[in-house]
Amino acid sequence: MARDPKHDVLFEPIRIGPKTLRNRFYQVPHCNGAGSEKPNAQAWNRAMRAEGGWGASCTEYCSIHPESDDTMRISARLWDEDDVRNLSLMCDKLHEHGALAGVELWYGGAHAPCMESRCVPRAPSQLPSDFEHLTYPKEMDKDDIREVQGFYVAAARRARSAGFDIVYVYGSHSYLPQQFLTPFYNKRTDEYGGSFENRARFWRETIEQVREAVGDDCAIAVRISTDMFMGEIGTQLERDALPFVELVDNLVDLWDVNVSGISEWGEDATPSRFYESGRQLPWQGRVKQVTKKPVVGVGRFTSADVMAEAIRSGKLDIIGACRPSISDPFLPTKISEGRYDDIRECIGCNICVSRWEIGGPPAVCTQNATFMEEYRRGWHPEKFTKAENADNDVLVVGAGPAGMECAMILGKRGMRRVHLLEAEKEMGGIMRWIPLLPGLGEWARVVNYRKIQIDKLKNVELIPSTRADANAVLKYGAEIVVIATGAYWATNGLNGATSEPIPGADASLPHVLTPEQIMVGGKEIPGERVVILDNDGYFMGVSLAEKLATEGKQVTLLTHLGEVAPYMKFTLELPNMLRKLHSLHVNIVTHAMLQSIEPGRAVSYHVFDPEHLTEWDADAVVLITQRRSNEALYRELKDLGTDALRSEGIIGLYRIGDCLAPRMVADCVFDGHRLAREIDSPDPAVPKPFLRDRKVIELLRA
Amino acid sequence: MARDPKHDVLFEPIRIGPKTLRNRFYQVPHCNGAGSEKPNAQAWNRAMRAEGGWGASCTEYCSIHPESDDTMRISARLWDEDDVRNLSLMCDKLHEHGALAGVELWYGGAHAPCMESRCVPRAPSQLPSDFEHLTYPKEMDKDDIREVQGFYVAAARRARSAGFDIVYVYGSHSYLPQQFLTPFYNKRTDEYGGSFENRARFWRETIEQVREAVGDDCAIAVRISTDMFMGEIGTQLERDALPFVELVDNLVDLWDVNVSGISEWGEDATPSRFYESGRQLPWQGRVKQVTKKPVVGVGRFTSADVMAEAIRSGKLDIIGACRPSISDPFLPTKISEGRYDDIRECIGCNICVSRWEIGGPPAVCTQNATFMEEYRRGWHPEKFTKAENADNDVLVVGAGPAGMECAMILGKRGMRRVHLLEAEKEMGGIMRWIPLLPGLGEWARVVNYRKIQIDKLKNVELIPSTRADANAVLKYGAEIVVIATGAYWATNGLNGATSEPIPGADASLPHVLTPEQIMVGGKEIPGERVVILDNDGYFMGVSLAEKLATEGKQVTLLTHLGEVAPYMKFTLELPNMLRKLHSLHVNIVTHAMLQSIEPGRAVSYHVFDPEHLTEWDADAVVLITQRRSNEALYRELKDLGTDALRSEGIIGLYRIGDCLAPRMVADCVFDGHRLAREIDSPDPAVPKPFLRDRKVIELLRA
Repeated sequence: MARDPKHDVLFEPIRIGPKTLRNRFYQVPHCNGAGSEKPNAQAWNRAMRAEGGWGASCTEYCSIHPESDDTMRISARLWDEDDVRNLSLMCDKLHEHGALAGVELWYGGAHAPCMESRCVPRAPSQLPSDFEHLTYPKEMDKDDIREVQGFYVAAARRARSAGFDIVYVYGSHSYLPQQFLTPFYNKRTDEYGGSFENRARFWRETIEQVREAVGDDCAIAVRISTDMFMGEIGTQLERDALPFVELVDNLVDLWDVNVSGISEWGEDATPSRFYESGRQLPWQGRVKQVTKKPVVGVGRFTSADVMAEAIRSGKLDIIGACRPSISDPFLPTKISEGRYDDIRECIGCNICVSRWEIGGPPAVCTQNATFMEEYRRGWHPEKFTKAENADNDVLVVGAGPAGMECAMILGKRGMRRVHLLEAEKEMGGIMRWIPLLPGLGEWARVVNYRKIQIDKLKNVELIPSTRADANAVLKYGAEIVVIATGAYWATNGLNGATSEPIPGADASLPHVLTPEQIMVGGKEIPGERVVILDNDGYFMGVSLAEKLATEGKQVTLLTHLGEVAPYMKFTLELPNMLRKLHSLHVNIVTHAMLQSIEPGRAVSYHVFDPEHLTEWDADAVVLITQRRSNEALYRELKDLGTDALRSEGIIGLYRIGDCLAPRMVADCVFDGHRLAREIDSPDPAVPKPFLRDRKVIELLRA
Repeated sequence: MARDPKHDVLFEPIRIGPKTLRNRFYQVPHCNGAGSEKPNAQAWNRAMRAEGGWGASCTEYCSIHPESDDTMRISARLWDEDDVRNLSLMCDKLHEHGALAGVELWYGGAHAPCMESRCVPRAPSQLPSDFEHLTYPKEMDKDDIREVQGFYVAAARRARSAGFDIVYVYGSHSYLPQQFLTPFYNKRTDEYGGSFENRARFWRETIEQVREAVGDDCAIAVRISTDMFMGEIGTQLERDALPFVELVDNLVDLWDVNVSGISEWGEDATPSRFYESGRQLPWQGRVKQVTKKPVVGVGRFTSADVMAEAIRSGKLDIIGACRPSISDPFLPTKISEGRYDDIRECIGCNICVSRWEIGGPPAVCTQNATFMEEYRRGWHPEKFTKAENADNDVLVVGAGPAGMECAMILGKRGMRRVHLLEAEKEMGGIMRWIPLLPGLGEWARVVNYRKIQIDKLKNVELIPSTRADANAVLKYGAEIVVIATGAYWATNGLNGATSEPIPGADASLPHVLTPEQIMVGGKEIPGERVVILDNDGYFMGVSLAEKLATEGKQVTLLTHLGEVAPYMKFTLELPNMLRKLHSLHVNIVTHAMLQSIEPGRAVSYHVFDPEHLTEWDADAVVLITQRRSNEALYRELKDLGTDALRSEGIIGLYRIGDCLAPRMVADCVFDGHRLAREIDSPDPAVPKPFLRDRKVIELLRA
């Protein structure tokens, strides 16, 4: 299938100052966990975007000085010449693929905790960060302003020396330039505070100085937040952002336009739960109206139609992407070749973001198991070697996220035949019903992508509506068997907080329910008053609370944790989730654990005072306590022993996904992918070692 | 002053299996943030303990396999030969100083989130971690048990190859061996679960195998938790720990005895707020009664009398230390030389622990600013070079933590005269009154240590009861001026959450109070009903709530955060703090911010629904909103300009500590220390670069 001509606009080159972008696909700065300290991981990851057709790829936010140290979070850094060496590798690899390399110069101001450098960050006014706990800046005087501007200039020169084509003076997500621009952070009474002209002064001067330093050799980009959604005290489009664009338009080669501050940056890196693709377009379009320079912007764009329309309608010149380029590094190539249905679309779950928020781990992606595995495991998202044992048949039992991914990759690795056995009529496993929770519809893309791919693979066949027992597996005729039978929510209240079931918790009773019973089984929820016990702390408890409250139930949500759904802080979903639950009058009770359940009644205790009991009138109790692997089939087969399996022709028996241990969908997809990538290794059950991209001491001893 | 002969027992060598410990001082495994990935930082830090007289120094917990990956937290690792190289540096340096090197082999079971390796950890039963959020293990079958035991053996061999003298089979803090031993984690019905013999089997076998592998070359140590304080379901001393000691006593060379699990490991790494030194002695003494092998154990010991008595009374053979060895690496040397009053005693604030809990940053210490700076900044805790500009006088204005530290280090660096000017009668700054908060008495050691040291320094003089204005400073006659005038709590409700004052917040009124007014000023708190607003989230809000509730007030504690005092999770103080506030009937309200204050009344709003107001009857409102630097004196001097200062003979003007930006005491001490260390650098105001102990790519380009 050829490319639709209406998408040709996406492939027109465009000038960015002294540089030329080969098309309209641009990976804007986003974190991946590599920073400057894992230089190979950084370079390989960005280069994969270039190989996949992106015209430019950028670092994450890149600290210009130890005063802007975000540890425990991982940023790139251009503090010294060794950082130049490390980031030059990324530039070289991008250039090999014909892409531009961008770097986002970052000074955090009030938001840089400096836990590694132990420096004191500087900011327009002495207000503690509304994002980083207990982080206070020094209030800048004129000398401070000159010095910090000097840091920008020095870092820009290092960036040029490393080979970067595009140098950002980053001013969104509430970092320093936005702090100066915005009354929330800027309480100054001198010429750097007060009027628009004064609030804009620091940023304008800094852009001037950076342009002066490197502007003939590099394009100067500015990332600007156009609205903080805070009213008068926040950054505002008409009052602040548009005048600023006009003020410095002659100095800037590229405008990277987004929204939000940092304390609620889920307004920018929008979870699909709350926002559809392109939510920033109205703001981006307004900037387009006032600038003469190209505008790039994100919007979690995965549809070529939407992208082309954004350009044709004059809202954007260049399609920016973070998450869609993570989910599919080859998105531009696939559009270029008209392979639209091969696009692995971002689901907007923000698991990638969560790892930055946690600080330290590499980013991961629910859809793309190869993300951040390009260097350390040598995985390419689109290239697959033929398995050395491809002359075998594989039976994959269970077509959930892990099973689908494993079957698909085994198919791409050329296994003779792959049968994907599924008890239900459709593939998907838990991802058949999780997308039915409020707001999670886009998560169904996990199934859609794999269904399409598997349909295309001649050597992979879905066998639906078929439940296999051990005997059926033994007699199936496949040499390799992969069990991917998933997990289930405990029906008896078993949980990690007490490690025991809860008295009276029995989901065979009418008034006790599990998530599957509600979402799949159609079990009726008796009465009006529902108590939900959430020992999980991610999306299930709050999603069911929202669903049941929306359906008119009076919902009480108990958790033994100190906060409800703490993981959703990391996915940036929590603030709007709490707003929603509050508006639905869900009664949230923290530090509470159920002691017992009876018809019509549940009793909880305070986790720091077990004698302190509370009785709840409860027509129904929903148990979100813990999950357990569905491992019966695997156990039965494995316990037969290797000899018995071999006598039936089975040379390999493995299990993956929730069947091994209940995990996030991203981890299940990874698990299925990993097994398929290593199905011809000496012991496929054990992951092969990966390159750790670390310093190694020379042994001095003999 | 000579050593008291009753302390001689601390300096008797003792056999640990095939090795000899030169004395009774032993740095047990504890984290420092270096792991295996920052090998120089790791080696220099541990070697400083050896240089300071500790007979042994150990790694932190050391992962034996990628399945036990604690990222975002930092552990040591012995996954491969490159890890061997990196950790061998530590061993070599310890041996140079005559100390033994220990390594704590660690497999986390249910508690290892594996966010870097993406492996699945294995555990006795499939229960999600009660510590690491959303972390599920695979339930081990017999093959799993054999494989994981094989990981221990392989790692032990690597440890031997790296040069370690002592190899731990670590089984406390709820990690894998303790999980097998303990009913909370072990629900098995096979020969590895149920009876004591069965629950002990995994650990016994593992110790046997490690001993078999390396036991002639290395001493085998076991760290065992003797009580989880959970009743029947937790580890118990008499039922589990003592029988286990007896069971494997012949295989073990050293018992490292502590208490607790991991979910409340503040019961072991005890904050001074809740426990005095030596709280583990009763458990350690019981183990001593049943073992023939030496027993080491921690107890936050800083007193030589207490240490010697612990040995003489038969409770311990060897004094274990984490925090006291962080606070003073030279504690053994100082005892040995009878320099008791030179000991820099741990205050039990657990800031060191907090950085491990946060995950990523190097550990820091309130008392010892040189901790983890041994390699990267080349700082030695006891050695100081004479400053190149020592022929100058220094005036330090303000004798708080930063000022005291700075004056002391400047004195040790041989400055001609250092005058430490203090407005109050005594030195200490905020540390004069913070230790008066409930439970924080030991924090006064920050002042005591520095007072004693300064008293000894002939070139440093405290000038008390003297408040200097700019003119007085100008005329003082010192060439170098350091302003350390601290910070104060905002009196008008200014805060980082809204960046504005709160209407009606005016601490000049009788019903509105700041922490200083209560603790220092003696301002009376009117009435019974007190509303405390905590926008800070560390110790001040909850401490005042405890104090006022204890004094009989009805206390409501509001915070805009989702949890009260979230930083106290990291210092391990939160669970017992919440128990205490609960027992005192303090009403905690989260996600609440004050809208206005009037006499007798305060109105709060829900931060996710500003229209949702709550009225509080409030006879008094306490504002813990934000701090501001006391920078007036510094500003006045600096704004005179360099020429004006020079005309008065002042060649350097600096500011440090809270006067620069309000911070934790640890950071203020560091700041004062840093300036003094670098007072003769080209620009003392700017910290010199530090070595980053990282991988650097060779530049391939010309």
